Amino acid sequence: MSSLTETFNLDACLKDARQVSRKLAKADRNKGLLAIADALETHSGEILSANAKDVTSERSKGTKEALIDRLTLTEKRLEGIAESVRLLVKLPDPLNKVLDGWQLDNGLQIRKVSVPFGVIGMIYESRPNVTVDAATLALKAGSSAVLRGSSNALNSNRVLVRVMRQALQDAGLPQNAIQLIDSPDRELVTQLLSARGKVDLVIPRGGSSLIQHVVETAKVPTIETGVGNCHVFVDASADLEQAKAIIINAKVQRPGVCNSAETLLVHKEVAACFLPDALAALSKLNVELFACERSRAYFPEAKNASEEDWETEYLDYKLAVKIVDSVEAAIDHISTYGTMHSESILTNDMKNARKFQEEIDAAAVFVNASTRFTDGFVFGFGAEIGISTQKLHARGPMGLAQIVTYKYLIDGEGQIRS
Amino acid sequence: MSSLTETFNLDACLKDARQVSRKLAKADRNKGLLAIADALETHSGEILSANAKDVTSERSKGTKEALIDRLTLTEKRLEGIAESVRLLVKLPDPLNKVLDGWQLDNGLQIRKVSVPFGVIGMIYESRPNVTVDAATLALKAGSSAVLRGSSNALNSNRVLVRVMRQALQDAGLPQNAIQLIDSPDRELVTQLLSARGKVDLVIPRGGSSLIQHVVETAKVPTIETGVGNCHVFVDASADLEQAKAIIINAKVQRPGVCNSAETLLVHKEVAACFLPDALAALSKLNVELFACERSRAYFPEAKNASEEDWETEYLDYKLAVKIVDSVEAAIDHISTYGTMHSESILTNDMKNARKFQEEIDAAAVFVNASTRFTDGFVFGFGAEIGISTQKLHARGPMGLAQIVTYKYLIDGEGQIRS
Repeated sequence: MSSLTETFNLDACLKDARQVSRKLAKADRNKGLLAIADALETHSGEILSANAKDVTSERSKGTKEALIDRLTLTEKRLEGIAESVRLLVKLPDPLNKVLDGWQLDNGLQIRKVSVPFGVIGMIYESRPNVTVDAATLALKAGSSAVLRGSSNALNSNRVLVRVMRQALQDAGLPQNAIQLIDSPDRELVTQLLSARGKVDLVIPRGGSSLIQHVVETAKVPTIETGVGNCHVFVDASADLEQAKAIIINAKVQRPGVCNSAETLLVHKEVAACFLPDALAALSKLNVELFACERSRAYFPEAKNASEEDWETEYLDYKLAVKIVDSVEAAIDHISTYGTMHSESILTNDMKNARKFQEEIDAAAVFVNASTRFTDGFVFGFGAEIGISTQKLHARGPMGLAQIVTYKYLIDGEGQIRS
Repeated sequence: MSSLTETFNLDACLKDARQVSRKLAKADRNKGLLAIADALETHSGEILSANAKDVTSERSKGTKEALIDRLTLTEKRLEGIAESVRLLVKLPDPLNKVLDGWQLDNGLQIRKVSVPFGVIGMIYESRPNVTVDAATLALKAGSSAVLRGSSNALNSNRVLVRVMRQALQDAGLPQNAIQLIDSPDRELVTQLLSARGKVDLVIPRGGSSLIQHVVETAKVPTIETGVGNCHVFVDASADLEQAKAIIINAKVQRPGVCNSAETLLVHKEVAACFLPDALAALSKLNVELFACERSRAYFPEAKNASEEDWETEYLDYKLAVKIVDSVEAAIDHISTYGTMHSESILTNDMKNARKFQEEIDAAAVFVNASTRFTDGFVFGFGAEIGISTQKLHARGPMGLAQIVTYKYLIDGEGQIRS
């Protein structure tokens, strides 16, 4: 890997990544992971001072504190990152699992076995912890990682990658299993996304404009992640106390993440009972409300919702509110505006619960629960590289099992086809 | 669906496809399939006369007879097509299978359930049977099919689609579950490949230039299929009689298909024993041989192989031949020139067999068997929409289980995230 230069050689980087990827499945990947965890702590001074440079530079641009916070590493956060790498070590190896197997009448024995992708590219925004997450998840899954973080975290990413590469070498693993595209040149992103046969999968992680750019530009396989315009629908038969707790949780427990709720749909029959109390409670929690005309009759303080509100993933203390006439109308609204991430119906009507789960086309469809549960750790995957909102390959939270592929091994004794 | 016109409205076609796709999972899809099978036979006269037009027009262009044959339908072939639709009816429904399920500590019950993609596009070359295959496989898998065949089969495809749509309607299913892009305008292919959110998956099926064009142009998820530069490697310890039978089978049993062998690699230690006899036998079966310098010493009638021969998927009575020094050299050659389809080692050395299966990155890796077995029907899938040579989503033969996706259904009792 070359250092910062105008002439970063992506082709050489990808060739190196491919070459070492052939050896990763058989290498002691857990040893490499432990070495990385230790090195992140040993080199915390270096890492934090590089990060401080990024933070200072970003602050001088007048960036919002919420974004500065995402960029910032601390001793404690770094320990948390190292700890999550150690947890990865404890997870079962996702490779060489016999996923299926059978024998044909002619005696051929077929095994379907999990194997690494090979080279995985990650394009992501400012959080430097993603640099470690992505590299170590790929390594555990037997693939080389080629990382492209955002330029405002370049100092942090550069030191993090250097420390991880050194740790790999010390553990007897190939350094080139982890590489950083160490240049601000945007053309390199286009090159990476066009490198058919050289990179097996690119995962974008970040805001919707990044995701859109990547999936529309890419000529290599990609997995769309993380854009969540999620809905909570309070049906006529819902337990309204429970419903209030759930919409509050889905909206304010962590508003900046993709599985938080962005629109509340309420069945007209319970609007009068539910809305005044629930919206007052949300408002008290500093949630700004954008409501349809009918909803505003029950809570005039809410602003008028426009078409744009139904479409928006606020990622903020903001919520759109709409009264609907039926479960069908709720499903129609979600089918029109949803992003196939997480949707929830709150109901005691079994028929409606089933209808909603059958007809809503989303990665996770909840009955009587907060949308906030769509998460690789919550689901028990032990890790998460992102939440897929596409239907090809993986849907919903992606852990180790979702970043491997498979091949068929077929053992014969001279069989030919007749 | 509009009839042939300069202004075919793809957007309306895709909207219709989406709308009816919502109902397919619960519709009696098998009833629709049986109606289609019957209708193909009832309307055979109409279909064959439309096909005759395509054949006449193609013949007048001086097209090769092999290609004319692929285009041609006969009463018997049509019966075969109808019969394969009836076999599809007997296969288990790929939808609503609980693929996995567990309960979280907080009581949330998670089910991972197979569901349809929604709208599947197929872009394919002249064989009109693919029109029926693709439409009926998509239907069985609960998705709408939007078909784009080649212009030289347009008369056949148009009648086939009309007959299938009428059969669906007669069976009480929505006609728009099967639609043909009924215009020769190539711009419509680009539009289909750019229709993000409107088509969930596009599968190209045809020659390598079609596949390349599709995967490089597409902004929608695609699955690369069917390009097979497959190798048979005869190791030093191979049973040479068996090896001769296998390379003959892999090359000449059906040379025009993707899982036939294109290059024979032979370990130097058995070259003298194996090559004269094996190459003579292949030559007698009209196989044209392109051999490396060392191989030609054992069979001077062979032509000189060039770099291009190692790269070429002949799909013909042609075979490249090369002597290699070791199993490692064979693996290197295949890693350089293979297309990740099907590769075979013939050996009695367990260590080499294992090494080859571990290190070769292909959908199907055989030991002591012909590459010709990579096939959805042979594998027991009961159907095949193509053979994937990519790593995302599906690898190798794709049956019904590979053209569905999944979602998570999560049942709670008021759970919120803490």
